[in-house]
Amino acid sequence: MFEAKFSNAGLFKKIIEAIKDLVSDAPFDCSESSMCLQAMDGSHVALVSLKLEIGIFDVYRCDRTISLGLNSAELNKVLKCAKADDTLMIQFQDGEQDSVTFTLEDNKGRKQDITLKLLDLDNEHLGIPDQKYSAVIEMPSSEFKKVCSDIATFSDTMTVVATKSNIVFKGSGDAVTNTISYSKDRTADEEDNDDDLTNFTKASSLSPRVRLSMSDAVPIVIEYEIEGNGFLRFYLAPKIEEDKNGMDE
Amino acid sequence: MFEAKFSNAGLFKKIIEAIKDLVSDAPFDCSESSMCLQAMDGSHVALVSLKLEIGIFDVYRCDRTISLGLNSAELNKVLKCAKADDTLMIQFQDGEQDSVTFTLEDNKGRKQDITLKLLDLDNEHLGIPDQKYSAVIEMPSSEFKKVCSDIATFSDTMTVVATKSNIVFKGSGDAVTNTISYSKDRTADEEDNDDDLTNFTKASSLSPRVRLSMSDAVPIVIEYEIEGNGFLRFYLAPKIEEDKNGMDE
Amino acid sequence: MFEAKFSNAGLFKKIIEAIKDLVSDAPFDCSESSMCLQAMDGSHVALVSLKLEIGIFDVYRCDRTISLGLNSAELNKVLKCAKADDTLMIQFQDGEQDSVTFTLEDNKGRKQDITLKLLDLDNEHLGIPDQKYSAVIEMPSSEFKKVCSDIATFSDTMTVVATKSNIVFKGSGDAVTNTISYSKDRTADEEDNDDDLTNFTKASSLSPRVRLSMSDAVPIVIEYEIEGNGFLRFYLAPKIEEDKNGMDE
Repeated sequence: MFEAKFSNAGLFKKIIEAIKDLVSDAPFDCSESSMCLQAMDGSHVALVSLKLEIGIFDVYRCDRTISLGLNSAELNKVLKCAKADDTLMIQFQDGEQDSVTFTLEDNKGRKQDITLKLLDLDNEHLGIPDQKYSAVIEMPSSEFKKVCSDIATFSDTMTVVATKSNIVFKGSGDAVTNTISYSKDRTADEEDNDDDLTNFTKASSLSPRVRLSMSDAVPIVIEYEIEGNGFLRFYLAPKIEEDKNGMDE
Repeated sequence: MFEAKFSNAGLFKKIIEAIKDLVSDAPFDCSESSMCLQAMDGSHVALVSLKLEIGIFDVYRCDRTISLGLNSAELNKVLKCAKADDTLMIQFQDGEQDSVTFTLEDNKGRKQDITLKLLDLDNEHLGIPDQKYSAVIEMPSSEFKKVCSDIATFSDTMTVVATKSNIVFKGSGDAVTNTISYSKDRTADEEDNDDDLTNFTKASSLSPRVRLSMSDAVPIVIEYEIEGNGFLRFYLAPKIEEDKNGMDE
Repeated sequence: MFEAKFSNAGLFKKIIEAIKDLVSDAPFDCSESSMCLQAMDGSHVALVSLKLEIGIFDVYRCDRTISLGLNSAELNKVLKCAKADDTLMIQFQDGEQDSVTFTLEDNKGRKQDITLKLLDLDNEHLGIPDQKYSAVIEMPSSEFKKVCSDIATFSDTMTVVATKSNIVFKGSGDAVTNTISYSKDRTADEEDNDDDLTNFTKASSLSPRVRLSMSDAVPIVIEYEIEGNGFLRFYLAPKIEEDKNGMDE
């Protein structure tokens, strides 16, 4: 038997919204200690890696390791039914091998059960080697989102250059060059022992953050921490710079 | 001569928005005591019945019974011109048999007259027999809207089952079942003398409500009361359950 | 060398948004005292005239008269990158004749440089003769926007009639007539010495205003003042009234 309960369905909703356009088939690997997902995007450029540790859940019970194969578009539809304060219970009974039940509940007597058929998905975990990165950047995720949107306005590719004093994002189009730079936050300097680390922190636990980890010739890692008990990571392979517009680190 | 004035155009705007996609040709039957509309939707599955009693209007004068045939899309365009606090006067002069004038007015010197040509519409009133329903359910209309939207996410049809203790809405898709249940509001129990009545009331006069009336093999009635002086009702024929996914009551 | 700095990029953003759908090629004529733009729309019905005087800018330096030819869609993309409180610097170096750099900067260490290639645009200024108009109307620009939207709902053309006591906007469709009138603001009467001037003022410096200037058989002028140091004007040729639905003044 498998049971996992979120006190707030909104968290899982945001996670699935974030990955549904990259990953259509989502194999959730559930073990005693965590619920994980690893999948390549359709174009095999990005690897999505999700880890939700037991501490994230209100209730968590996993009697044996299982993999639950779900279509992420269907899963997204399920979670669109969730109201702001609904709880979400995910249940899988060993007897009924082919479906998972999602139960949304508010505190006013409303209860919604949605049962999805499981998919039979290939599920080969890629070993992701531990890597020492030459630059690790933390910044507000709203800023990073704006950077990506601004660069995408004029260009298909982005170049990221991190130095001791700043980080620079670049993109070029036909008749346009677009350069966005962030100077290092001086007030954060003292905690910054690694000379290669550029820290763009705003000291607020409420403000969501993103961490970019980069080294030459290995995938850049874009990581969102999840409530101190997990993460959502995107690994993006660098584009080989033939045309001077590639992505590197 | 016919004159009907709403102190707030927004009310009539909401009514027309609610029916315009169901009913394209709208024959408004105006009598001494009320303004009514009865029309089938294009697919002849739903009957729309609107009644606005004299008490709803600021000014109401109807010298003789008339039927004003209007295209609801055009009427909707007229009402989209209304600002939040505009008054709305509807006027028809006996001399000019072929048009109705809608006058929107604010309290700052703005006045807008829109004159629409009348349509010559067939207008056979269906006699709707008085019916004793085996279950009558009242619930917040926002909840009912969410139920319909959630069910429609996965399914074309909805099954409604009312019992003494709860009401259950069900829909099924290819690989999905979706069940939404509301438990009976215990605090409302005492006023509930009819054993077949399931009441999902939140005691607030501000919160708009919907009433569902159901019996086996007769159309379900979905009714919205309008300011204590009228109603908008939808009669939906039950779907014959050949495929186990039909709607019944 | 040319340099012009807005303390708030939002102002230039709104200007470009207002003209980008009318004018695709935008030749900005920069002189010692102002930055101007004059261009016909694609269908040669409207003339756009923009004037930004030196007082509008935080920094303004123009060593010699130049014309900067920009594509307004690209320029709009640049300005979409601007955040609410960003400053905007526009720079053109004499050495590098073919591009202009837009620099967006916030007060948190973010700096974005976008460089656009210049276009080689024909730039013949039309001499706009000084005109004494028989009616000049000022009204809240939000009201004027609503008038245009309401009229466009039913009609392709608009007739404007100004009298001593009111202004009337009219449009007709196949089965519709639509008339919007504003009565003269009595409280504003005393300052109104010109009998032909109809003033629809709401006495608030915060509320943006529009001025309509009209005479028979000459283009109507729709003018938005810009912070007391410039204007955006649209000159619209009157439609010859063959079909009784034309625009005149």
